[in-house]
Amino acid sequence: MTNLIRPTDDDARQLARNLLINARHGALGVIDPETGGPVVTRVAIGWDGTAALLLVSSLSGHTTAIRASPATSLLVGQPSLWGDPLTHPRRTLLPTAEKTDEAAHRARWQADHPKSGLYFDFADFLMFSHVVCVAPLNGGFGNAFRLGPQDLTHGLTTSPRSPANP
Amino acid sequence: MTNLIRPTDDDARQLARNLLINARHGALGVIDPETGGPVVTRVAIGWDGTAALLLVSSLSGHTTAIRASPATSLLVGQPSLWGDPLTHPRRTLLPTAEKTDEAAHRARWQADHPKSGLYFDFADFLMFSHVVCVAPLNGGFGNAFRLGPQDLTHGLTTSPRSPANP
Repeated sequence: MTNLIRPTDDDARQLARNLLINARHGALGVIDPETGGPVVTRVAIGWDGTAALLLVSSLSGHTTAIRASPATSLLVGQPSLWGDPLTHPRRTLLPTAEKTDEAAHRARWQADHPKSGLYFDFADFLMFSHVVCVAPLNGGFGNAFRLGPQDLTHGLTTSPRSPANP
Repeated sequence: MTNLIRPTDDDARQLARNLLINARHGALGVIDPETGGPVVTRVAIGWDGTAALLLVSSLSGHTTAIRASPATSLLVGQPSLWGDPLTHPRRTLLPTAEKTDEAAHRARWQADHPKSGLYFDFADFLMFSHVVCVAPLNGGFGNAFRLGPQDLTHGLTTSPRSPANP
């Protein structure tokens, strides 16, 4: 079989890093504890410097699923509303979810998600930290890579985060 | 526990139908046959009148996964680039993938995906039909529904499909 994975270089690492630290939402994949099948939902995403953060309701199906099986998947990198969506870079993260203290991330989360002040302190909301392990990067057709955690920090300048949606 | 699922009405059915028939891409969730965990990737999506269509490469990981375990999940409904992404309607489909003949869907697929002529006939490309069974609908905060296949056709006028991305 043809090897479609290209050797990782600094351009790929920088693109992967930018996709991750600038993600404000993404598609979360979990395992449905009842069926064993995959379920994909949209979630808000934050970034604490080393891990992706998710603020979710304990009443939601994905929270029940994460608690039953913490191996998740997160797709980040929103396509433009114009042009072929498959040429737009995106990254599939394969992290493991761990409960974290949402109060410690309040300021950063609310800066990234300006409307979240409405529900951040609701009793049913909780936060998971998603430490990224292996994470394929698809930079568009013919630009597939397979990056690990070390590629997030290897020889990179720190990019400023983009602002939240207006 | 609070029941967050609202009774299904025709507005919900129409919204769900529009999200599905207008989807040109989405987030596909599959089970990784090696790890048993979920994997989410971006895929191009079509619609044949009764089922969502996926054109994928046999060299891709998601195709290997679908062949091993055809229960998938598809998230459709792209958020705007402005405003809170979680207020934008989206729908999680929980279909089962079945191999279908891509030649029978060529004209419709290429109209929906203008660039696909470049690779549609590549030997490694194949098409799966995703018949939709249960499919939660999230119309934004406080607007969650749980729809079945009958809700796709029940008492609805046929909406014209939106054009592909310019």
